[in-house]
This record gives sequence, structure tokens and C-alpha cells, in this order.
Amino acid sequence: MGRPPKGTRPVTDPSLTEDFWRELTGNAEPSQREQFLWLSIDLVRELGLNQFKITTVAKMLGYSVAMVNHHFGSRDGLIAECAERVHQNYSLQLIDATEAAERNPRARLEAYIKARVVCGRELGGWTQVLNYPFHSFESPAIAIARSGDAFENSFFRNLMFITQLVLDLQTGTVSESRPDREVFANEIMRQNPTAIFHASNIGTATAGAVMWMSGRMDVFTQPQEIVELANAALEWQVQHLVNSIPVS
Amino acid sequence: MGRPPKGTRPVTDPSLTEDFWRELTGNAEPSQREQFLWLSIDLVRELGLNQFKITTVAKMLGYSVAMVNHHFGSRDGLIAECAERVHQNYSLQLIDATEAAERNPRARLEAYIKARVVCGRELGGWTQVLNYPFHSFESPAIAIARSGDAFENSFFRNLMFITQLVLDLQTGTVSESRPDREVFANEIMRQNPTAIFHASNIGTATAGAVMWMSGRMDVFTQPQEIVELANAALEWQVQHLVNSIPVS
Repeated sequence: MGRPPKGTRPVTDPSLTEDFWRELTGNAEPSQREQFLWLSIDLVRELGLNQFKITTVAKMLGYSVAMVNHHFGSRDGLIAECAERVHQNYSLQLIDATEAAERNPRARLEAYIKARVVCGRELGGWTQVLNYPFHSFESPAIAIARSGDAFENSFFRNLMFITQLVLDLQTGTVSESRPDREVFANEIMRQNPTAIFHASNIGTATAGAVMWMSGRMDVFTQPQEIVELANAALEWQVQHLVNSIPVS
Repeated sequence: MGRPPKGTRPVTDPSLTEDFWRELTGNAEPSQREQFLWLSIDLVRELGLNQFKITTVAKMLGYSVAMVNHHFGSRDGLIAECAERVHQNYSLQLIDATEAAERNPRARLEAYIKARVVCGRELGGWTQVLNYPFHSFESPAIAIARSGDAFENSFFRNLMFITQLVLDLQTGTVSESRPDREVFANEIMRQNPTAIFHASNIGTATAGAVMWMSGRMDVFTQPQEIVELANAALEWQVQHLVNSIPVS
């Protein structure tokens, strides 16, 4: 198991201070399992999946790689659980950003769209994993078995939430509650089936925007004028996405 | 070098017939270098970068891995050159699809957008590499040094081409020539600076759509009704992207 003898503590990397853990996890002394999870989340965000090595995580925490298998079954099991956690946090951040906005449908939808881009860029190496799960895992089957349902639920909850925001804009209301699958199927989809098309258009357009910003731009370092043009295009896109939704 | 003695031929995988090469490269007997390049393109498309091994390519062609380094410097050098080739073919396919459409600005723009989605999905594992070069290479610096300029030129040529199609729609014309950087800066950008915003919106929206279709859907195998909904959303998105461009 690689666990050190009882009563001793593993020798961890000096960067892993209580402040580090508090900032990353909200807890200065997370459990061993949470340490593996959150340190991996942090490293994949920074390095991307290709350069992420479980030997690095284990070494930083003072354990052997066997401990990853003990807690998560495999490298893919660890990554799948990280991805699930990252996506859940991401969708909660989008809801928080929306609820922090001015209480009118347009301001809420704009806040949601802007938060998608900001959060998406903060995800760093995770955007690639979340967007291309099939190509990111050695074995997509392991990833699906471990986290497929939770991940899909989180994804769908998010899609229902944007659709609700679109419908709110169209009808000039502010919904208090978040739609569940039944409300979604029976009320939202029946009331206006095109709302989900606008929602998915917002989803794909912002996903693509994040990709262009964080995926491409970071490599082909651009002159300042191109960066400014890209930022202007992004700002324009947010307005255009909202403006192109017909309201009643 | 791993080269077999003069006069003998390496033992290649039986799947690599003349028909295989003709279909993949247009040439039944490509050079050794082209074989490495195109077989790698084919394998990354099918497997994604994470599961692509240069040992597999070398073994299938009957050489040692040293031959990859001989021709391309490194695994990243090989992948960078593949990515450049893939992107160039992709942008030519988009132009071909546009020029095969009915000669009116709307039909041309629709054909272009649809081709982006179709070609994007056909790229398979390459979409991830093209969208996230920073996270896909062990060393982005090697990739940029080898292919950064060609890749960026191809990317920008493509962006100029969509922008021209947007402007054609807005002005009701069909441009015969493809814009170069000078025409782009002096005529297109001056005539209508928002055309490039519509172009980049089309770019990010379709890039995101391809990602949702090929990246997410393939893993979380969806019930038929969801697949149909996604296809309808995609069809709607093409029309919506074109309809939301103001024409004069």
C-alpha cells in the first residue's frame, strides 16, 4: 500500500502547506484521499493531461503510486473522479454567478454566459478533458463506469439551467427554482422547444470560444492587437448571443 | 537508423496494402517519410493522441522508432507535422465545399458551415490536438518551432475566408478570389469591422458543436431521442448562425 509505519507521517513536498490546501480545497487538513484528488486537479489544470504523471502526485504527497490504485483503482479512475468534481464545481460556479447578477432575465443570462467563458479559461488543462473525454482517457470505459452518470447528470443539469435562462429572457420572468428533468420535459420543452436550441447554441459557442482563447491562443502567442481583437470578439459574441434570441 | 539491409524490404503490417495507401494519401506507393506521416495521421484520428504510440507506427511499417526521430526529430515533431498537414487539408476541404455550392452568398456560407461540422467530426482525435495544441504536446515549443507558422497561416487563411463569406452575404455578392492579408486588412476590415466578429462567432460555435458531437456524445452514448435532438440542434444552429447576420 505504500503507507508509512503507524505514527509517522509521510514526507510531503514543502509547497503543500496548510494555506495551500485551504485555498485549493477549503480545508487546511483534507483527508489523504482528498489530497490525492485535489492535488491531481491542480496539476492537470496547470499541465494538461499529457504531462500529468501520477508518480508526481504520489511523490509530492510522500506515497507510492500504489496508493493511487488503492483509492481510485487506476490513473483513469483518478482522472475520472477529478473530472466529475471539476465539472460539478464548474456548474455550481455558473449558477452562483447567475444568482449574483441583477435580478432581470437579460442580466442573468449575460452573467451566465460571461461566467462560462471565465470559468472555462480557469479550468486550463481540464477543458480538454471535459470536452474530449473519449480521447483523454486510456480507457473511456473505466471512466464511464466510475463517473459517467454523475458527469452526465452534471452536464444535463447545466443544459437545463441555460435553457431556463433563455426561456426567462423570452418571457420576461426570473425563475426562482432550478428545473428538474420532469419540469424540463413537461413545461420548458412543451412551452418552447426552440429554447433548448438557443441554449445549446450558447453552450457550443462559448465552449468554442474558451477553446480558441485557452487552447490556441496560449500556444501561438499573438501580438497585442490580435489579443485585443479576440477580446472584443468575445465581448461582441456575448451580446450577439443574447440579442439573437427572439423575445415575446 | 533501423533501415534494413540494402535490397530487402521491411516486413510491414498486412493491412498496409496499395489500396490502403491510395485511399489515405492518393498514392499507392508513398515515400517512407509520407508513410510515417499518413499512418500517424490515420492512427491519431482513430485513437486520439493519448493512445497513439510511435512504437505502433514504426512496427507497422517494419522499422524501429529511431526512424521517427530520423525523419521528424521526435514524437512531438511528427505530431506537429501531421497536425499542420491535417489542418491544411481541412481548410482546403472547406473551400472546396463552398465552391461546390450554388453560386449565391447564402448557399455558400451554409455549405461552408456545414462542411466545418462534417469535416470536424471526421477529424476524430485530431480535433482535440488542433483545438488544444498547448495541452496536446509534450513540448509545445518543439511543435511551434517546427510547424507554428504554417499552422497559424492556415488558421488565419481560414478565418479570412469565413469573413469574406460573411461580407459577401451582407453585400449580396459572390467574391471570386480568396482574400490575402493585405486585402483583408485594407478592404474587408475597413468596409465592415463586424464581419470578422460574425466570422469568429461562426468559428467558435461550430468548433464547440463539433466538440459536443464528437467529444462528448461518443463517450456518453445517448438514447436515440437525444441524438436526434442534438442533430436537430445542429441543423437549427447552421440556420441561426446565418440568419443572425444583418444584411444590407
